[in-house]
Amino acid sequence: MAPNPPGRGPEARGGVANPPVVTRSPEVGPDRRVTFRLLAPKASEVTLTGEFMEGSRSLQKDDKGVWSVTVGPLEPEIYNYNFIIDGVRTIDPNNPHVKTGSTAFTIQSVLEVRGDGAAFYDGHGVPHGEVRAHWYESKSLNALRRLTVYTPPGYDRNVQGRYPVLYLLHGANSDETVWTRDGRANLILDNLLAEGKAKPFLVVMPFGYGVPPGTPAPVSGGGPSDNTALFSRDLIEDVIPLIQSRYRVYADRDHRAIAGLSMGGGESLGIGLNHLELFSYVAGFSAALRPAEFQKTFAGLAANPQDANEKLHLLWIGCGNQDSLFPAARSFSEFLTEQKIKHTFRESSGAHTWINWRRYLNEFAPLLFR
Amino acid sequence: MAPNPPGRGPEARGGVANPPVVTRSPEVGPDRRVTFRLLAPKASEVTLTGEFMEGSRSLQKDDKGVWSVTVGPLEPEIYNYNFIIDGVRTIDPNNPHVKTGSTAFTIQSVLEVRGDGAAFYDGHGVPHGEVRAHWYESKSLNALRRLTVYTPPGYDRNVQGRYPVLYLLHGANSDETVWTRDGRANLILDNLLAEGKAKPFLVVMPFGYGVPPGTPAPVSGGGPSDNTALFSRDLIEDVIPLIQSRYRVYADRDHRAIAGLSMGGGESLGIGLNHLELFSYVAGFSAALRPAEFQKTFAGLAANPQDANEKLHLLWIGCGNQDSLFPAARSFSEFLTEQKIKHTFRESSGAHTWINWRRYLNEFAPLLFR
Repeated sequence: MAPNPPGRGPEARGGVANPPVVTRSPEVGPDRRVTFRLLAPKASEVTLTGEFMEGSRSLQKDDKGVWSVTVGPLEPEIYNYNFIIDGVRTIDPNNPHVKTGSTAFTIQSVLEVRGDGAAFYDGHGVPHGEVRAHWYESKSLNALRRLTVYTPPGYDRNVQGRYPVLYLLHGANSDETVWTRDGRANLILDNLLAEGKAKPFLVVMPFGYGVPPGTPAPVSGGGPSDNTALFSRDLIEDVIPLIQSRYRVYADRDHRAIAGLSMGGGESLGIGLNHLELFSYVAGFSAALRPAEFQKTFAGLAANPQDANEKLHLLWIGCGNQDSLFPAARSFSEFLTEQKIKHTFRESSGAHTWINWRRYLNEFAPLLFR
Repeated sequence: MAPNPPGRGPEARGGVANPPVVTRSPEVGPDRRVTFRLLAPKASEVTLTGEFMEGSRSLQKDDKGVWSVTVGPLEPEIYNYNFIIDGVRTIDPNNPHVKTGSTAFTIQSVLEVRGDGAAFYDGHGVPHGEVRAHWYESKSLNALRRLTVYTPPGYDRNVQGRYPVLYLLHGANSDETVWTRDGRANLILDNLLAEGKAKPFLVVMPFGYGVPPGTPAPVSGGGPSDNTALFSRDLIEDVIPLIQSRYRVYADRDHRAIAGLSMGGGESLGIGLNHLELFSYVAGFSAALRPAEFQKTFAGLAANPQDANEKLHLLWIGCGNQDSLFPAARSFSEFLTEQKIKHTFRESSGAHTWINWRRYLNEFAPLLFR
């Protein structure tokens, strides 16, 4: 495809509503079979990887240089996928829906397959909350950082009311926008609230790295504990005070929850279970956990399980049994059982994907602040 | 590069802060020369296009299969660019900063070259406003749509105060997030406010299409006027009432401005100048305009220039003289002069890029609501 004409970028087009003709990809058929296409006469090999299948599939080239492959039928769902063009893993350049994050490892194209009715993550005819982005100077990290806040429908008008808060953490290579962009957290909560299935609460989604991704964590040996320790300072010393000064929220542990996925699941369990003076609901979704370090990381729980059980209104562990992190999640549940710590262990199907994390939020949110 | 390991996506990494090793691209040297790299042993041709140069440059392959090219030195700025890999226009897969929009035509990688000091679009140590996303049901278009709102620092605490509003429109193939993502509108305004150079006001950034991009506009001949007409209904019948019900804003024409870039510039001039009962400040940045239709589109102005001049506090037209839309902008200025309509025509250097649009906002915002 030709580069932009000189002096005129993609925003031009003379006010014409229709974009230039592109190869249609992905195309979802009425039977929910999906065709992926790429115009690449000079390429020698194009393959597809995606969350809707194991392994990869080769695309076949026709006599016009259009590569294509059809998969499915697929279940209605939101899937991520990549093209590999002559060995280069990249996006589907004809699909405007791109998943990005804090590192290039996260860049994927997004395929949404719709079902006959609305999904729990669709924004259909219900009242909608707001999603706010805050830029703030983190004193503990000496950095300009950003966080995302969901306020439920009616928050602005309910000027006398106070709300509980869920702190919700993203995974590795991602950022503070992913829970609303790919996770649809706001639409999931809008729908639960409209159906009377959840209490109204704020969701605060901070940036979960203590140091920029790709840069080494400073001092004391490096590794994940340093990142969690640095992020923990930002959360406790900067984020929670900022939220409590800017929003009408309760400031006690009974009205504060923490949850996260993958790397953020490791953070939510590590921070939440070591700060029961701050949090009473704690969850890990497909959490990144190190069984060899359970005794050390969670020494406080083991020392006084009765106190922990009194303070924890809910400890929820969810993982898909096709996730390579599943054994660690099961080990953690067994560790908790040995230590006589009450908890819910939710074994689901599926792997390490947003498919599960959207579902876990949809299951977990109704249990909060009851 | 291998696809994700089965059952474990990019969000895993066991809580380790460092992402997988990738080829470093783009790399900005201390002399502001920039090297682009791509590991692609099987590719036969890789080229680079970007806003920092005319035309394209070929990358050269080394014996390890890494393609590279160095450009510059470049002026400190934010630039968009693409790789063309064996004829396929795509992103730099090693760069996490991706510009997306409402069509695939907008997908580009983003290169930021920093200077010695802070730029006017950098978020440095100043108070920060908030950026809010609203999902709303547009009654006029019968669709779930989204808009973005910037509130200046202190808006939430200043519960007695009211604010003026700038409605700020995006270009073709883009969406309601681009003015804060690529345009840095919130940071530009934070900085202007901190320096006392602008009055505090809200910025409302709606989705500027009346129909989803890529779908034909319904009825009456098609084309841009239909899109503008449909979007105009959403703006006037849904967006403005929503903003006035949710925010503490003035609801009179003296406190309402409209501006936009490219397609959105055509919209802001077409809507604003035909609704002087609603708007008193109107601007087009590199606007998509059709000189053959000036007499028809702006018949109201020509009919009563004295009334227009009394009502318009500011009519501002900006365009880069390397932009292919520059002749249309100059023609519009000449048309306005012929009709005796007071206005500012700002000829800048540069082309049809965000480089100019950030600068225009930075110049235009201080002129508002004086």
